[in-house]
Amino acid sequence: MQKFGFIGLGIMGSAMAANLVRAGFEVAVWNRSPGKAVELVALGAKRLETPQAVVESCQVTFAMLADPAAAEAVCFGKYGVLDAVGHGKGYVDMSTVDAATSRKIAAAITAKGGRFLEAPVSGSRKPAEEGTLVILTAGDRSLYDEALPGLERMGKKVLFLGEVGNGANMKLVVNMVMGGMMAAFCEGLALGTKQGLTTADILDVLDAGAMANPMFRLKGGAVTRGDFSVAFPLKHMQKDLRLAIALGDQAGQPLFTTAAANEAFKRAKALGFGEEDFSAVLKAIT
Amino acid sequence: MQKFGFIGLGIMGSAMAANLVRAGFEVAVWNRSPGKAVELVALGAKRLETPQAVVESCQVTFAMLADPAAAEAVCFGKYGVLDAVGHGKGYVDMSTVDAATSRKIAAAITAKGGRFLEAPVSGSRKPAEEGTLVILTAGDRSLYDEALPGLERMGKKVLFLGEVGNGANMKLVVNMVMGGMMAAFCEGLALGTKQGLTTADILDVLDAGAMANPMFRLKGGAVTRGDFSVAFPLKHMQKDLRLAIALGDQAGQPLFTTAAANEAFKRAKALGFGEEDFSAVLKAIT
Amino acid sequence: MQKFGFIGLGIMGSAMAANLVRAGFEVAVWNRSPGKAVELVALGAKRLETPQAVVESCQVTFAMLADPAAAEAVCFGKYGVLDAVGHGKGYVDMSTVDAATSRKIAAAITAKGGRFLEAPVSGSRKPAEEGTLVILTAGDRSLYDEALPGLERMGKKVLFLGEVGNGANMKLVVNMVMGGMMAAFCEGLALGTKQGLTTADILDVLDAGAMANPMFRLKGGAVTRGDFSVAFPLKHMQKDLRLAIALGDQAGQPLFTTAAANEAFKRAKALGFGEEDFSAVLKAIT
Amino acid sequence: MQKFGFIGLGIMGSAMAANLVRAGFEVAVWNRSPGKAVELVALGAKRLETPQAVVESCQVTFAMLADPAAAEAVCFGKYGVLDAVGHGKGYVDMSTVDAATSRKIAAAITAKGGRFLEAPVSGSRKPAEEGTLVILTAGDRSLYDEALPGLERMGKKVLFLGEVGNGANMKLVVNMVMGGMMAAFCEGLALGTKQGLTTADILDVLDAGAMANPMFRLKGGAVTRGDFSVAFPLKHMQKDLRLAIALGDQAGQPLFTTAAANEAFKRAKALGFGEEDFSAVLKAIT
Repeated sequence: MQKFGFIGLGIMGSAMAANLVRAGFEVAVWNRSPGKAVELVALGAKRLETPQAVVESCQVTFAMLADPAAAEAVCFGKYGVLDAVGHGKGYVDMSTVDAATSRKIAAAITAKGGRFLEAPVSGSRKPAEEGTLVILTAGDRSLYDEALPGLERMGKKVLFLGEVGNGANMKLVVNMVMGGMMAAFCEGLALGTKQGLTTADILDVLDAGAMANPMFRLKGGAVTRGDFSVAFPLKHMQKDLRLAIALGDQAGQPLFTTAAANEAFKRAKALGFGEEDFSAVLKAIT
Repeated sequence: MQKFGFIGLGIMGSAMAANLVRAGFEVAVWNRSPGKAVELVALGAKRLETPQAVVESCQVTFAMLADPAAAEAVCFGKYGVLDAVGHGKGYVDMSTVDAATSRKIAAAITAKGGRFLEAPVSGSRKPAEEGTLVILTAGDRSLYDEALPGLERMGKKVLFLGEVGNGANMKLVVNMVMGGMMAAFCEGLALGTKQGLTTADILDVLDAGAMANPMFRLKGGAVTRGDFSVAFPLKHMQKDLRLAIALGDQAGQPLFTTAAANEAFKRAKALGFGEEDFSAVLKAIT
Repeated sequence: MQKFGFIGLGIMGSAMAANLVRAGFEVAVWNRSPGKAVELVALGAKRLETPQAVVESCQVTFAMLADPAAAEAVCFGKYGVLDAVGHGKGYVDMSTVDAATSRKIAAAITAKGGRFLEAPVSGSRKPAEEGTLVILTAGDRSLYDEALPGLERMGKKVLFLGEVGNGANMKLVVNMVMGGMMAAFCEGLALGTKQGLTTADILDVLDAGAMANPMFRLKGGAVTRGDFSVAFPLKHMQKDLRLAIALGDQAGQPLFTTAAANEAFKRAKALGFGEEDFSAVLKAIT
Repeated sequence: MQKFGFIGLGIMGSAMAANLVRAGFEVAVWNRSPGKAVELVALGAKRLETPQAVVESCQVTFAMLADPAAAEAVCFGKYGVLDAVGHGKGYVDMSTVDAATSRKIAAAITAKGGRFLEAPVSGSRKPAEEGTLVILTAGDRSLYDEALPGLERMGKKVLFLGEVGNGANMKLVVNMVMGGMMAAFCEGLALGTKQGLTTADILDVLDAGAMANPMFRLKGGAVTRGDFSVAFPLKHMQKDLRLAIALGDQAGQPLFTTAAANEAFKRAKALGFGEEDFSAVLKAIT
């Protein structure tokens, strides 16, 4: 059976690594605070002392880190990934980072003779636990092929998108569409209820037609109950909209509707809803 | 078995009336150009000479007319609905008309002692044939109950939304959300492809997540092939966006994202795509 | 000296008629409530009993009425303008009406053998009193030439813009630019003050550059004092923005920036500022 | 007579330094390419070999550099400003840089015991030559007082705006209003001409009212002739709009109208008009 490394055992990472262990792979893990590894070790994983040790122990190492700073620390830090990555070793960074950070890590890894694959995911805690993430990979194709048996245990859908940066950009594009859809949806709810329609009826009609989708169903039900408990924080959605618009800026792509949606999310953030779910944009529209 | 009238045998109306006939109801029909009734008569319907005759022949008459002008002509014209509608007769207008026209017809019918139900539908030719329309009724509740056996043969989902005008307004709200979603979707496609992503990959990712919906699947596939053949004409979508924004105007509901989407559809119309499918807004965004 | 009629003696009309009288013209006046004419009669005007009598008494009659309904009433009503307007008589309607109303009145007048000039004005009470209005005429050129000596007493700037409807449309275009400018200006004030700049400094810098204009100076000073007392009501600005956008709709002209500004004015109206000055849009932006 | 240093003799800087010399101040100058100093030396300026030498030779040194990179090079480079700036020396950076660069330079200067004033200008070549710039200073108040006799020779309007960064931010705010105004203006021109009005008439009416301003007059005349020769490049305006929107992002200030205007400028840039005057946004709106 194939052997994998896994670095970063937060909420997402530990669920993803557990799916690898349960699938029968030999898995070596590392996390900054070692306590997080206890449960995985009980499942059968092996805890090592440094990222370097993990990379040395196998051909393909996955990483799932909190943000660009953590991704860079694990790669460039002492006893880090870079200290072990030569000789065709594969490093698959599944953290959500911007295209620039991704390209920087990729360049360092390949300069040392390693192979790099970026693989940000779409989906949060529950899909991570259930192994139903959508995984957006880009970079070294041979590494993709080699990592695929592992990736398929973590996600229900794995795409290879070409060169490094495309995974990060795909995530921005998808989140941007999500933000625009949410703003349009909330404007519809706001207008309809002002006309005397009920949210329940509006949701019912939307769900019966060609626009029916899990997000409207889930978020619509929640906002009807005044429930904005966070799945995807509004401030992160607004950040992604800002980054997507900046991408459009570089690419010569005007984005009028997205720009209006972005301002609505900014208003919501200014009103103090940044830490709530991104559906709380409704409160800035009503 | 219940007896129904059906006035207006265009593409939609004839398919809807046929579903009534096939379900075993006795159906009396009328159409301005009588040729349209031939097929229905072959199925078992009875053709009468005037709208008045249809209404006289049964307790509940459905109508499906092309536009507000036709709806008014059939109601107020010579040998029209109004000439027969007294004594608790029921008239169910399924045409797509604005709230004002609907209220005008309702007032005339009830002044004569009749009962009125507006029942615009969501869905086009195919759902009409398959009896899977979404039907948005509002008005007289007792008439709704009485017409329901017929409505349920024409639609998979029938809602009762309260007072006359709510059906028309619900349709605007839903189409408005659809227009905003389409604009956000097309901006995502435009941005992504400029970044070197393929439309197929973007569609794939969208379809794997919480936003997955039949419209993205259907329209995304079509626009990838450069196919903008019309299901819902762009100019009608733009008209509905305009009307929804006007509704927001009266109701004190600002609609920034919808307003931006509306301008995108207007640009598409100005570029000559008004008669194509509303997904052709993509060509005004790219 | 030339003889003129003047119908409609509200705030604007009485000031304008007074300028004609003071310039030495013989002026016959009519107003629905006759009390309004007292002051003008004291100045030397002659009060007549009906619009018809005014039109009969001279070759060129001006009208300044509150809205399209009043403009139609005076024209089409009993003892109205139409009852006297034949034989080349000239009727100059200076009321602010939409292009459609203007064309309807024009058609009726010319059908009777009269001549018509629309002449909406830009400017409010003070310019009316000072004879410094901007007058936007369109329609019959010979009537324009004949009315010019009077128009030049009422305005500092008189333009002839071609066919009937162009005056009304020009007013919409100009007010639309004004609304967009005001929204941009208020966004600048809101952003700047959030950065710790003072409104006074921002106004100072704007006033020193190529953008310097009386509106920023006047409104900027007022809003700094929290003074939104009405010169041009916000609800009227929002109506003009809506009409301008509708004009763009017909003409195939997308107006993204204006549409966003319109939504800001709608938000201000929804917040209850419709009766304040249009600069109160600031309160919906901050 | 006071003695000043002047670093950076491009189009703007040489004109500004010349105004100091002509006013009778003793002026020591430096420029990277020494040829630029010839004319100024002929007028009476003294050319020195390094920025360090200029700062050493006097109490107050002005700098006018092309961009943030040049501003940093002159400050932090070998024989740079920092090498001489101790003991209360004053450094007035008039370059257009972002608030962050400005704060970085300020911190370095004050850490060495020097005083810093940022002083970006509004206005281009002609106002620089005529000494009619608008100068937006912020930072050390005592240095402001000391530099004022020089600043007043270079500008017609000199403001002191508080702490370092406020000058840069004021410039963004003002340019942002300018971009929004230009977009609204161009939408008005586009709509009006589609209605059959002439640009000349629209300009005439705007110029007769409360919105009259030099920019509409100047740019309106030019665009009527199809003249988009550059005074302020469109790509720079778009950059300033982007930065202003980013500022709003940090400050919690939604900017819907500006965001729409920004997208219009982005469309113009995407269409290839980035190097033309910012009034070329008209070509992306028509």
